[in-house]
Amino acid sequence: MSPYRTVQRKRDGFELTPAEITSFMNGYRDGHVAEYQVAAFLMAVFFRGLTTAELHALVEVMLRSGDTVVLDDVPGIKVDKHSTGGVGDKVSLILAPLVASLGVPVPMMSGRGLGHSGGTVDKLESIPGFRTDLTLAAFRAQMKKLGCALIAQTDEIAPLDRSLYALRDVTATVESIPLIASSIMSKKLAEGLDALVLDVKAGNGAFMPEPARAEELARTMIAIGESYGKRVVAYITAMDRPLGTAVGNALEVIESVECLRGGGPADLREVTLTLAAEMVMLGDGAPDRDAARSMAAAALDDGRALERFRQIVRAQGGDVSAIDDTDRLPAAPIRVDVAAARTGTVTAIDVRAIGLAAVALGAGRANLKAVIDPAVGFLVHVKPGDSVERGHAIAQVHAADEDSAARAVTELSAAITIGDGDAAFLPLIGPRITASR
Amino acid sequence: MSPYRTVQRKRDGFELTPAEITSFMNGYRDGHVAEYQVAAFLMAVFFRGLTTAELHALVEVMLRSGDTVVLDDVPGIKVDKHSTGGVGDKVSLILAPLVASLGVPVPMMSGRGLGHSGGTVDKLESIPGFRTDLTLAAFRAQMKKLGCALIAQTDEIAPLDRSLYALRDVTATVESIPLIASSIMSKKLAEGLDALVLDVKAGNGAFMPEPARAEELARTMIAIGESYGKRVVAYITAMDRPLGTAVGNALEVIESVECLRGGGPADLREVTLTLAAEMVMLGDGAPDRDAARSMAAAALDDGRALERFRQIVRAQGGDVSAIDDTDRLPAAPIRVDVAAARTGTVTAIDVRAIGLAAVALGAGRANLKAVIDPAVGFLVHVKPGDSVERGHAIAQVHAADEDSAARAVTELSAAITIGDGDAAFLPLIGPRITASR
Repeated sequence: MSPYRTVQRKRDGFELTPAEITSFMNGYRDGHVAEYQVAAFLMAVFFRGLTTAELHALVEVMLRSGDTVVLDDVPGIKVDKHSTGGVGDKVSLILAPLVASLGVPVPMMSGRGLGHSGGTVDKLESIPGFRTDLTLAAFRAQMKKLGCALIAQTDEIAPLDRSLYALRDVTATVESIPLIASSIMSKKLAEGLDALVLDVKAGNGAFMPEPARAEELARTMIAIGESYGKRVVAYITAMDRPLGTAVGNALEVIESVECLRGGGPADLREVTLTLAAEMVMLGDGAPDRDAARSMAAAALDDGRALERFRQIVRAQGGDVSAIDDTDRLPAAPIRVDVAAARTGTVTAIDVRAIGLAAVALGAGRANLKAVIDPAVGFLVHVKPGDSVERGHAIAQVHAADEDSAARAVTELSAAITIGDGDAAFLPLIGPRITASR
Repeated sequence: MSPYRTVQRKRDGFELTPAEITSFMNGYRDGHVAEYQVAAFLMAVFFRGLTTAELHALVEVMLRSGDTVVLDDVPGIKVDKHSTGGVGDKVSLILAPLVASLGVPVPMMSGRGLGHSGGTVDKLESIPGFRTDLTLAAFRAQMKKLGCALIAQTDEIAPLDRSLYALRDVTATVESIPLIASSIMSKKLAEGLDALVLDVKAGNGAFMPEPARAEELARTMIAIGESYGKRVVAYITAMDRPLGTAVGNALEVIESVECLRGGGPADLREVTLTLAAEMVMLGDGAPDRDAARSMAAAALDDGRALERFRQIVRAQGGDVSAIDDTDRLPAAPIRVDVAAARTGTVTAIDVRAIGLAAVALGAGRANLKAVIDPAVGFLVHVKPGDSVERGHAIAQVHAADEDSAARAVTELSAAITIGDGDAAFLPLIGPRITASR
């Protein structure tokens, strides 16, 4: 089958055979299929979708394009969590050591910031010395020792997905449910996990803002996982506001440590405990979800989760003293409050705009070569529905210089709408979704 | 506006501004917009279409990407004809000198064979010495002298269309009405014409087989022409059979000369006279269409059209003796009849398959570098609905060797279905379409 025919058949709504998808994608890898043909294919998929069989074939060819980790010598049911990405989402930093401290191994490979959203790897790297570039051998060794490792996806994992993602990112073909689902699941399936909890974000700061579409994405990922014999559970959670207060790398580490000490913002703790309970259940670590949640809350409150985090930081070369005293983390020289322009109610937060403002400040990458400033970012004090008083601080900007601080203040003010009406917002924890069997 | 945003906006069904289309396409030409981004854009256009304003902007940027011919010093209303392409369509060779002989100037730039369809330029080049690569200055000079020139589209005409077409050809984005219409019209508008007759083919040998889609293509092209102040009239004509009998370059020249002598197949003469009458009317050369048609028939029958063709051939370096004695044209050494396998009625002809069989025989190009054999091709003696008798010749193959002849006989037999039922076929001359004003 020629690449042309494959594009044409997808365009015209025919179901491609697994062999056709495999041949097209392997042709892309070895240069026989041109990038412009793949771009046309991706846009056709955007409009036509993928059938279950097509989706499975695509995941399979992406998964087989690289290494897969075998963690058979790590005892227990390995459970990971994946979030579809948002602003202020530092849950992985808390959740991974927390669940590992409860005896459920967590093999976690994370990404860097993408577009307006932050990345776990970038956040971890704001801890002085912390290395996320472990070899797969070191990853396995640490899994055996600590039941948890927090690393960046290596180049050996699903290289085809990396090429496809880079192409989607410049051809406006990112926002396709089957393409998002296959990208995420091919990487996760390569990690050596047995079960997975998905945190699928909805709201204006999510890549798939409409809750119904977020649910469809969740169901698509669950179906892929199940076809590989992995148990997958998903939650739709709110991204029509930043999660927690801190946005920015070191600021989010500080907030994560607060949560690991039993404190931190209520919404961050709630999402963390909900996902932790689900992971513990999948890992056969508790008799029921309520018990699992209580165990997780106790591990946050009594310091076990924090201690596991300290061990992970030390094992991965990080400076533990910066966890024990977060004043030793990178800090920005300029701090400017953002004052409410009027008295009223926070009726909406443009989370995507806040994420982009953080990128502009230096907390993320405007392009692949940009260097991140770990110290900069925001504290956003308000949530939709909060009452605010004119002149009171609704947020704080942490910046490297006065100019970028001033720009960020303007952008934050514009992103937080204060009005008189009621605020319509998503439930923090939305539907729990499981395989429909 | 970034190229990404332009692709995304088209993908999501927003109307692009003229500036956005111009900037995207100029970016493609100067390398700032990548081929894969254009490929994704073209596929998005396949699904979303183009609004009238978008279409106009695309035509404009293609037209302005190259030279345009000014024929103001050629007296009269310049009228051209364009066919959307098919098998055995040699009408241009007859029509252009015919209409010019009636006093209406015809500035005709044609293409080469494309896919299964033949090209006027390839046919003309089977006349020994005939040159289609005139400069635009020579084109203008011949227009003044003979009122007609038959040349290939030069590299200076709409180079952006050429790049886009090459990309569409490998990304399965050819079959899009706005992309076909803008491609054709940008080239035609660059020719210096005042009015245009479109021969839009329908049927299985056409690029847009369904008559309703062919009509939509016609209306789209008419709207573009009218927006440039050009009068455009279209006919839908049948391409569920080859036009005339001959398929192949020299064979089609011979048949054209027969028609220019007042003979030739009835369907070829009918299509030619219909289009000629329309061109004469658009060129203000007759009081009504019946009169125009009678004038055209007379010019075929009394030798005026042939004499103009001889003058054109001579002016463009061709050997006129090969027109006067067509036995001097290239001829194939092998001639094999295709016999009817049974007695019955021709119920269907797979015209596309016949076109592809002709390409395989050497009458067209399987790839851009292939060299055409001007001598090879077919005579197809039957039309849908004809009664045939087992063993009688329904076609003749003209080939360079026995092997390719044998393959072509098999392919032709398979392409002509003989059955017992009624044949369903299109009217030779379908609807006449004009601007809806």
